[in-house]
Amino acid sequence: MDSQSEELLAHIIRNTRIAALGTLRDEAPFVSMVTFIAAEDFSAFYLHVSRLAQHTMDMAKDKRVSLLIAEADDGRADPLTLARVSIRGSVDLLHNDEPAYTSVKNKYLEHFPESEPLFNLPGFEIWCIKPKGGRFVAGFGQAYNLTREALQEVSQLKT
Amino acid sequence: MDSQSEELLAHIIRNTRIAALGTLRDEAPFVSMVTFIAAEDFSAFYLHVSRLAQHTMDMAKDKRVSLLIAEADDGRADPLTLARVSIRGSVDLLHNDEPAYTSVKNKYLEHFPESEPLFNLPGFEIWCIKPKGGRFVAGFGQAYNLTREALQEVSQLKT
Repeated sequence: MDSQSEELLAHIIRNTRIAALGTLRDEAPFVSMVTFIAAEDFSAFYLHVSRLAQHTMDMAKDKRVSLLIAEADDGRADPLTLARVSIRGSVDLLHNDEPAYTSVKNKYLEHFPESEPLFNLPGFEIWCIKPKGGRFVAGFGQAYNLTREALQEVSQLKT
Repeated sequence: MDSQSEELLAHIIRNTRIAALGTLRDEAPFVSMVTFIAAEDFSAFYLHVSRLAQHTMDMAKDKRVSLLIAEADDGRADPLTLARVSIRGSVDLLHNDEPAYTSVKNKYLEHFPESEPLFNLPGFEIWCIKPKGGRFVAGFGQAYNLTREALQEVSQLKT
Protein backbone atom coordinates (compact mmCIF):
# COMPACT_ATOMS: atom_id res chain seq x y z
CA MET A 1 0.00 0.00 0.00
CA ASP A 2 1.37 3.45 -0.86
CA SER A 3 1.84 5.99 1.93
CA GLN A 4 -1.03 8.18 0.76
CA SER A 5 -3.44 5.25 1.10
CA GLU A 6 -2.01 4.42 4.53
CA GLU A 7 -2.63 7.98 5.69
CA LEU A 8 -6.15 7.88 4.30
CA LEU A 9 -6.82 4.66 6.21
CA ALA A 10 -5.54 6.12 9.49
CA HIS A 11 -7.56 9.28 8.83
CA ILE A 12 -10.90 7.55 8.31
CA ILE A 13 -10.43 5.29 11.34
CA ARG A 14 -9.68 8.32 13.55
CA ASN A 15 -12.17 10.80 12.12
CA THR A 16 -15.29 8.80 11.30
CA ARG A 17 -17.90 8.77 14.08
CA ILE A 18 -20.36 6.16 12.86
CA ALA A 19 -19.89 2.66 11.48
CA ALA A 20 -22.01 -0.21 10.21
CA LEU A 21 -21.88 -3.21 12.51
CA GLY A 22 -22.57 -6.66 11.09
CA THR A 23 -23.74 -9.30 13.53
CA LEU A 24 -25.27 -12.74 13.17
CA ARG A 25 -29.03 -13.03 13.73
CA ASP A 26 -30.49 -16.51 13.25
CA GLU A 27 -27.31 -17.34 11.29
CA ALA A 28 -28.01 -14.48 8.84
CA PRO A 29 -26.20 -11.14 8.65
CA PHE A 30 -27.78 -8.11 10.34
CA VAL A 31 -26.29 -4.65 9.81
CA SER A 32 -26.98 -1.71 12.12
CA MET A 33 -25.48 1.71 12.81
CA VAL A 34 -23.20 2.29 15.78
CA THR A 35 -20.90 4.97 17.07
CA PHE A 36 -17.34 3.80 17.76
CA ILE A 37 -13.83 4.77 18.75
CA ALA A 38 -10.57 3.02 17.88
CA ALA A 39 -7.74 2.23 20.28
CA GLU A 40 -4.63 4.39 19.68
CA ASP A 41 -2.84 1.44 18.04
CA PHE A 42 -5.93 0.23 16.10
CA SER A 43 -5.76 -3.08 17.99
CA ALA A 44 -9.35 -2.65 19.17
CA PHE A 45 -12.57 -0.86 18.27
CA TYR A 46 -15.00 0.09 21.02
CA LEU A 47 -18.79 0.43 20.85
CA HIS A 48 -21.12 1.84 23.50
CA VAL A 49 -24.46 0.14 23.12
CA SER A 50 -27.67 -0.71 24.92
CA ARG A 51 -28.12 -4.26 26.17
CA LEU A 52 -31.65 -4.12 24.76
CA ALA A 53 -30.52 -3.37 21.19
CA GLN A 54 -30.76 -6.18 18.64
CA HIS A 55 -27.06 -6.00 17.75
CA THR A 56 -26.10 -6.34 21.43
CA MET A 57 -28.24 -9.44 21.83
CA ASP A 58 -26.61 -10.81 18.67
CA MET A 59 -23.09 -10.12 20.00
CA ALA A 60 -23.94 -11.83 23.28
CA LYS A 61 -24.85 -14.97 21.30
CA ASP A 62 -22.06 -14.96 18.70
CA LYS A 63 -18.77 -13.07 18.86
CA ARG A 64 -18.22 -12.92 15.11
CA VAL A 65 -18.75 -9.38 13.83
CA SER A 66 -17.73 -7.05 11.05
CA LEU A 67 -17.38 -3.28 11.19
CA LEU A 68 -17.51 -1.02 8.13
CA ILE A 69 -16.00 2.42 8.55
CA ALA A 70 -16.77 4.55 5.50
CA GLU A 71 -16.23 8.19 4.65
CA ALA A 72 -19.51 10.10 4.84
CA ASP A 73 -21.05 10.74 1.43
CA ASP A 74 -20.09 14.30 0.56
CA GLY A 75 -22.13 14.44 -2.64
CA ARG A 76 -19.15 13.88 -4.96
CA ALA A 77 -19.89 12.75 -8.53
CA ASP A 78 -18.87 9.13 -7.93
CA PRO A 79 -19.61 7.73 -4.46
CA LEU A 80 -17.59 4.59 -5.27
CA THR A 81 -14.47 6.71 -4.72
CA LEU A 82 -15.34 7.10 -1.01
CA ALA A 83 -12.70 5.43 1.17
CA ARG A 84 -13.86 2.60 3.43
CA VAL A 85 -12.49 -0.24 5.51
CA SER A 86 -14.23 -3.47 6.46
CA ILE A 87 -12.94 -5.05 9.66
CA ARG A 88 -13.62 -8.68 10.57
CA GLY A 89 -13.18 -9.57 14.19
CA SER A 90 -14.33 -10.98 17.44
CA VAL A 91 -16.26 -8.97 20.03
CA ASP A 92 -16.39 -9.14 23.83
CA LEU A 93 -18.02 -7.17 26.60
CA LEU A 94 -15.63 -4.84 28.42
CA HIS A 95 -16.76 -5.22 32.02
CA ASN A 96 -16.83 -1.99 33.97
CA ASP A 97 -14.50 -3.42 36.63
CA GLU A 98 -11.76 -4.12 34.07
CA PRO A 99 -8.71 -1.81 34.28
CA ALA A 100 -9.19 -0.51 30.71
CA TYR A 101 -12.83 0.47 31.24
CA THR A 102 -12.31 3.97 32.64
CA SER A 103 -9.81 5.11 30.02
CA VAL A 104 -12.00 3.78 27.19
CA LYS A 105 -15.05 5.49 28.73
CA ASN A 106 -13.16 8.78 28.98
CA LYS A 107 -11.98 8.57 25.39
CA TYR A 108 -15.54 7.75 24.29
CA LEU A 109 -16.84 10.80 26.10
CA GLU A 110 -14.19 12.98 24.43
CA HIS A 111 -15.48 11.85 21.03
CA PHE A 112 -19.16 11.75 21.99
CA PRO A 113 -19.89 14.24 24.78
CA GLU A 114 -23.62 13.78 24.14
CA SER A 115 -23.39 10.15 25.24
CA GLU A 116 -22.61 11.11 28.86
CA PRO A 117 -26.21 10.56 30.09
CA LEU A 118 -26.13 7.05 28.59
CA PHE A 119 -23.16 6.11 30.75
CA ASN A 120 -25.36 6.74 33.76
CA LEU A 121 -28.20 4.56 32.52
CA PRO A 122 -28.34 0.91 33.47
CA GLY A 123 -27.92 -1.47 30.55
CA PHE A 124 -25.45 0.54 28.47
CA GLU A 125 -22.21 -1.33 27.93
CA ILE A 126 -18.87 -1.03 26.18
CA TRP A 127 -18.05 -3.84 23.75
CA CYS A 128 -14.57 -4.36 22.30
CA ILE A 129 -13.92 -5.66 18.78
CA LYS A 130 -10.51 -7.25 18.26
CA PRO A 131 -9.77 -7.23 14.53
CA LYS A 132 -8.60 -10.42 12.81
CA GLY A 133 -8.15 -8.69 9.47
CA GLY A 134 -9.85 -6.44 7.03
CA ARG A 135 -10.16 -4.99 3.59
CA PHE A 136 -9.45 -1.37 2.77
CA VAL A 137 -10.83 0.28 -0.37
CA ALA A 138 -9.01 3.57 -0.90
CA GLY A 139 -11.03 4.39 -4.00
CA PHE A 140 -12.31 2.74 -7.13
CA GLY A 141 -10.11 -0.26 -7.99
CA GLN A 142 -7.71 0.32 -5.08
CA ALA A 143 -8.39 -2.47 -2.60
CA TYR A 144 -6.01 -3.95 -0.05
CA ASN A 145 -6.29 -6.88 2.33
CA LEU A 146 -5.24 -5.93 5.84
CA THR A 147 -3.75 -8.03 8.58
CA ARG A 148 -4.03 -7.07 12.23
CA GLU A 149 -0.33 -6.20 12.09
CA ALA A 150 -0.80 -3.91 9.07
CA LEU A 151 -3.55 -2.04 10.93
CA GLN A 152 -1.25 -1.50 13.89
CA GLU A 153 1.54 -0.22 11.63
CA VAL A 154 -0.82 2.26 10.03
CA SER A 155 -1.81 3.51 13.50
CA GLN A 156 1.71 4.87 13.92
CA LEU A 157 1.19 7.45 11.17
CA LYS A 158 0.37 10.95 12.26
CA THR A 159 -2.65 12.29 10.38
CA MET B 1 -45.25 4.87 13.42
CA ASP B 2 -46.18 8.57 13.19
CA SER B 3 -46.40 10.22 9.76
CA GLN B 4 -43.25 12.29 10.30
CA SER B 5 -41.23 9.10 10.87
CA GLU B 6 -42.81 7.48 7.81
CA GLU B 7 -41.79 10.45 5.68
CA LEU B 8 -38.27 10.34 7.09
CA LEU B 9 -38.04 6.64 6.22
CA ALA B 10 -39.20 7.23 2.63
CA HIS B 11 -36.80 10.16 2.38
CA ILE B 12 -33.68 8.27 3.43
CA ILE B 13 -34.48 5.29 1.20
CA ARG B 14 -34.90 7.60 -1.81
CA ASN B 15 -32.11 10.07 -1.14
CA THR B 16 -29.24 8.04 0.29
CA ARG B 17 -26.69 6.87 -2.29
CA ILE B 18 -24.56 4.44 -0.31
CA ALA B 19 -25.44 1.59 2.00
CA ALA B 20 -23.67 -1.02 4.10
CA LEU B 21 -24.19 -4.52 2.78
CA GLY B 22 -23.90 -7.45 5.16
CA THR B 23 -23.11 -10.82 3.62
CA LEU B 24 -22.00 -14.18 5.00
CA ARG B 25 -18.34 -15.07 4.59
CA ASP B 26 -17.29 -18.41 6.11
CA GLU B 27 -20.51 -18.22 8.16
CA ALA B 28 -19.43 -14.90 9.70
CA PRO B 29 -20.80 -11.44 8.86
CA PHE B 30 -18.90 -9.26 6.39
CA VAL B 31 -19.94 -5.65 5.85
CA SER B 32 -18.94 -3.61 2.81
CA MET B 33 -20.02 -0.39 1.13
CA VAL B 34 -22.26 -0.43 -1.93
CA THR B 35 -24.26 2.02 -3.99
CA PHE B 36 -27.93 1.14 -4.38
CA ILE B 37 -31.32 2.21 -5.67
CA ALA B 38 -34.75 1.20 -4.39
CA ALA B 39 -37.69 0.09 -6.51
CA GLU B 40 -40.50 2.70 -6.62
CA ASP B 41 -42.61 0.61 -4.22
CA PHE B 42 -39.65 -0.34 -1.96
CA SER B 43 -40.27 -4.02 -2.79
CA ALA B 44 -36.68 -4.41 -3.98
CA PHE B 45 -33.25 -2.85 -3.57
CA TYR B 46 -30.77 -3.04 -6.44
CA LEU B 47 -26.97 -3.13 -6.31
CA HIS B 48 -24.55 -2.86 -9.22
CA VAL B 49 -21.42 -4.78 -8.30
CA SER B 50 -18.38 -6.51 -9.72
CA ARG B 51 -18.41 -10.29 -9.88
CA LEU B 52 -14.85 -10.17 -8.51
CA ALA B 53 -15.81 -8.29 -5.33
CA GLN B 54 -15.86 -10.23 -2.07
CA HIS B 55 -19.50 -9.34 -1.33
CA THR B 56 -20.57 -10.64 -4.76
CA MET B 57 -18.83 -13.96 -4.20
CA ASP B 58 -20.55 -14.12 -0.79
CA MET B 59 -23.98 -13.42 -2.34
CA ALA B 60 -23.41 -16.11 -4.96
CA LYS B 61 -22.87 -18.62 -2.14
CA ASP B 62 -25.58 -17.51 0.30
CA LYS B 63 -28.61 -15.36 -0.47
CA ARG B 64 -29.06 -14.05 3.06
CA VAL B 65 -28.09 -10.38 3.26
CA SER B 66 -28.76 -7.22 5.22
CA LEU B 67 -28.63 -3.64 3.98
CA LEU B 68 -28.17 -0.63 6.24
CA ILE B 69 -29.26 2.71 4.81
CA ALA B 70 -28.18 5.53 7.12
CA GLU B 71 -28.25 9.29 6.86
CA ALA B 72 -24.75 10.63 6.17
CA ASP B 73 -23.09 12.05 9.28
CA ASP B 74 -23.59 15.81 9.06
CA GLY B 75 -21.49 16.62 12.10
CA ARG B 76 -24.48 17.14 14.46
CA ALA B 77 -23.81 17.01 18.19
CA ASP B 78 -25.28 13.53 18.66
CA PRO B 79 -24.78 11.10 15.76
CA LEU B 80 -27.16 8.61 17.43
CA THR B 81 -30.01 10.84 16.21
CA LEU B 82 -29.17 10.02 12.56
CA ALA B 83 -32.02 8.12 10.94
CA ARG B 84 -31.26 4.63 9.61
CA VAL B 85 -33.01 1.51 8.44
CA SER B 86 -31.69 -2.07 8.50
CA ILE B 87 -33.23 -4.33 5.89
CA ARG B 88 -33.03 -8.13 6.08
CA GLY B 89 -33.63 -9.97 2.88
CA SER B 90 -32.73 -12.40 0.20
CA VAL B 91 -30.61 -11.51 -2.83
CA ASP B 92 -30.58 -12.80 -6.41
CA LEU B 93 -28.77 -11.93 -9.60
CA LEU B 94 -30.90 -9.95 -12.05
CA HIS B 95 -29.90 -11.50 -15.39
CA ASN B 96 -29.46 -9.02 -18.20
CA ASP B 97 -31.99 -10.87 -20.36
CA GLU B 98 -34.76 -10.45 -17.77
CA PRO B 99 -37.50 -7.95 -18.70
CA ALA B 100 -36.81 -5.71 -15.66
CA TYR B 101 -33.08 -5.40 -16.38
CA THR B 102 -33.18 -2.43 -18.75
CA SER B 103 -35.49 -0.26 -16.63
CA VAL B 104 -33.43 -0.98 -13.49
CA LYS B 105 -30.22 -0.18 -15.39
CA ASN B 106 -31.69 3.11 -16.64
CA LYS B 107 -32.81 4.10 -13.16
CA TYR B 108 -29.37 3.21 -11.81
CA LEU B 109 -27.72 5.42 -14.40
CA GLU B 110 -30.05 8.30 -13.49
CA HIS B 111 -28.85 8.06 -9.89
CA PHE B 112 -25.23 7.22 -10.72
CA PRO B 113 -24.26 8.67 -14.09
CA GLU B 114 -20.60 7.97 -13.29
CA SER B 115 -21.30 4.24 -13.30
CA GLU B 116 -22.01 4.18 -17.03
CA PRO B 117 -18.54 2.87 -17.98
CA LEU B 118 -19.02 -0.02 -15.53
CA PHE B 119 -22.14 -1.18 -17.38
CA ASN B 120 -19.94 -1.73 -20.41
CA LEU B 121 -17.36 -3.78 -18.53
CA PRO B 122 -17.68 -7.55 -18.37
CA GLY B 123 -18.33 -8.91 -14.89
CA PHE B 124 -20.49 -6.09 -13.52
CA GLU B 125 -23.93 -7.30 -12.50
CA ILE B 126 -27.17 -6.08 -10.98
CA TRP B 127 -28.29 -7.94 -7.87
CA CYS B 128 -31.77 -7.60 -6.38
CA ILE B 129 -32.52 -7.71 -2.65
CA LYS B 130 -36.08 -8.65 -1.74
CA PRO B 131 -36.75 -7.44 1.82
CA LYS B 132 -38.26 -9.82 4.36
CA GLY B 133 -38.43 -7.15 7.04
CA GLY B 134 -36.42 -4.51 8.75
CA ARG B 135 -35.87 -2.16 11.61
CA PHE B 136 -36.09 1.60 11.34
CA VAL B 137 -34.49 3.91 13.86
CA ALA B 138 -35.87 7.41 13.38
CA GLY B 139 -33.72 8.85 16.14
CA PHE B 140 -32.58 8.04 19.64
CA GLY B 141 -35.10 5.71 21.28
CA GLN B 142 -37.49 5.70 18.31
CA ALA B 143 -37.20 2.25 16.75
CA TYR B 144 -39.79 0.39 14.72
CA ASN B 145 -39.92 -3.12 13.29
CA LEU B 146 -40.91 -3.11 9.64
CA THR B 147 -42.69 -5.73 7.62
CA ARG B 148 -42.36 -5.93 3.85
CA GLU B 149 -45.93 -4.59 3.65
CA ALA B 150 -45.13 -1.60 5.89
CA LEU B 151 -42.21 -0.70 3.61
CA GLN B 152 -44.47 -0.77 0.58
CA GLU B 153 -47.04 1.44 2.32
CA VAL B 154 -44.37 3.98 3.16
CA SER B 155 -43.30 4.04 -0.50
CA GLN B 156 -46.64 5.63 -1.37
CA LEU B 157 -45.73 8.81 0.51
CA LYS B 158 -44.51 11.71 -1.54
CA THR B 159 -41.31 13.16 -0.06
